[in-house]
Amino acid sequence: MLKPLVVIALGGNAMIKGKQRGTVEEQIENITETAIQIMKVIPKYRVVITHGNGPQVGNIMLQMEAGSHPPINRPVLPMDVCGAMTQGQIGYMIQNILGNLLLEGPPSRTNPEEKIKVSTIVTQVVVSKDDPAFQNPTKPVGPFYSKEQADSIQSEHPDFTIIEDAGRGYRRVVPSPNPIEIYEKDQVNTLLEAGFIVVASGGGGIPIVKNEDGIVQGVEAVIDKDYAGERLAVDVNAEIFAILTDTDRVYLNFNTPEAKGIDSITSSEVESYLKDGTFGTSLKGSMGPKLKAALRFLKDGGKKVIITSPDLAAEALEGKAGTTITP
Amino acid sequence: MLKPLVVIALGGNAMIKGKQRGTVEEQIENITETAIQIMKVIPKYRVVITHGNGPQVGNIMLQMEAGSHPPINRPVLPMDVCGAMTQGQIGYMIQNILGNLLLEGPPSRTNPEEKIKVSTIVTQVVVSKDDPAFQNPTKPVGPFYSKEQADSIQSEHPDFTIIEDAGRGYRRVVPSPNPIEIYEKDQVNTLLEAGFIVVASGGGGIPIVKNEDGIVQGVEAVIDKDYAGERLAVDVNAEIFAILTDTDRVYLNFNTPEAKGIDSITSSEVESYLKDGTFGTSLKGSMGPKLKAALRFLKDGGKKVIITSPDLAAEALEGKAGTTITP
Repeated sequence: MLKPLVVIALGGNAMIKGKQRGTVEEQIENITETAIQIMKVIPKYRVVITHGNGPQVGNIMLQMEAGSHPPINRPVLPMDVCGAMTQGQIGYMIQNILGNLLLEGPPSRTNPEEKIKVSTIVTQVVVSKDDPAFQNPTKPVGPFYSKEQADSIQSEHPDFTIIEDAGRGYRRVVPSPNPIEIYEKDQVNTLLEAGFIVVASGGGGIPIVKNEDGIVQGVEAVIDKDYAGERLAVDVNAEIFAILTDTDRVYLNFNTPEAKGIDSITSSEVESYLKDGTFGTSLKGSMGPKLKAALRFLKDGGKKVIITSPDLAAEALEGKAGTTITP
Repeated sequence: MLKPLVVIALGGNAMIKGKQRGTVEEQIENITETAIQIMKVIPKYRVVITHGNGPQVGNIMLQMEAGSHPPINRPVLPMDVCGAMTQGQIGYMIQNILGNLLLEGPPSRTNPEEKIKVSTIVTQVVVSKDDPAFQNPTKPVGPFYSKEQADSIQSEHPDFTIIEDAGRGYRRVVPSPNPIEIYEKDQVNTLLEAGFIVVASGGGGIPIVKNEDGIVQGVEAVIDKDYAGERLAVDVNAEIFAILTDTDRVYLNFNTPEAKGIDSITSSEVESYLKDGTFGTSLKGSMGPKLKAALRFLKDGGKKVIITSPDLAAEALEGKAGTTITP
């Protein structure tokens, strides 16, 4: 019988922590730590990995901007292409590091003489060109600018939306549309069926829109990594969606004296807590989208969502740590 | 019966031509032209695509250097990681553009209701840590420097080898070791068996060395794309290796009044012409490695190599254009 399939979504801190710049040494160290935790999951589960790319894509955008003026004068590439570059970068590191750990790991499902291998699939994710996000860009990308810098960038790129970010300066924002379909889902499923671990849809996937003839085209947008991970989990028929982040579990009344960690909760409880504000400030940052991604997955037929930190992932899958959300 | 399998190696000019900077518009236009030619091959052949990455990786290295100083201060990543980034970048563009053309193309082999789809696999390529190339770096990468710049970079990076390039300035050179194994060959073969077109081993692959326990690690090197393509062709059991470049075919006495295009030639003739210098200046640039890659492929059991330009690829496979090399 096949082991249950879990899609693991790695947060940014699995690769670049806090104030790190993202040197290769830092990324290798962090990914190694995370991969050691994923190794504990592999004996009991088949695994698909997806990951964020915020700091990496931010670095590429800054470097392209820095190299765009004479005498260097290299082209600035659009966000879809930058996202694809981070899929190569991060996918390579995960596949290299986890691949090395797997040399000592369980045998492959299809050939007991062989070890499980890892593959990264460059992944496009379809969004709707009618998604309201395109009328209302909200996702900040790249650095903070002074008013002067912001004006200069705005005149250079009239199509950019630049907003003031509460006292911290000006920032470009891009649309964050909903993922509809993992365009390479057949490729991912083929590799999964053959027993590989697959890294897919990194950075929320490369956002593309589809016209009525099916032609797809990249767009300047950023898809939320947990929403894309949810779509991936549905498209590969995963039983479990594991969101790994920088907290051991979800909290009620986070950051208050009444803070209370949640071990286990149902969809409808999450919905009512979301409505009445019981999650408090824990919804700031990325916990809101994580909980909404969890609800979507359970609505789409998923059996279980866990939200925890990488070091507790294996225990959380056994119900011994983290927050477990069920339908 | 399965259609014969051809590995197509795309030269740099399939993506960025001559003096182009490599904007996304330029790359999309060039890749579209090339993809239209590949579409003519697909009805009769199964296809694996590999490609160069010289201008793209050059741009990334320049941009990283430009963004490496305060106040931007973003990390410079090593060449293996930069190579992985170009696999994401170029793989995405090929898979997007060729995928769109395939919507009107032949049905998939496994499901006549479906069209053939494209996949990019992030690909590591094993080289030997004892390869003599590591003692003698020869492959120029990145920009030309003045003597002053070269000295400053050398003191910042004592491990770099920087050489003077015949009056044109100073340049970093890196080792160009021989590819031994396409590390993700099983993944590529799995996708091929399921009927996908696969893009793999871009930029010659991400160079890795393997220690005695099988642990693999990225190294700062550049594998020749045609040598890596040859290894890929062997590892996927391709019948044909098609090297697409900026000339319609191979010439004897190239660039002289006696220049003579070759339609068809055997391995042993290539070997003797290589020995006695009959290819003349056509061996300058990259024709030497292409011919050596061709010889390797035919020695390794390949049935046919063609060398031609993208627009003649389909005709060359029928023996009606380009240079065909047989055992």
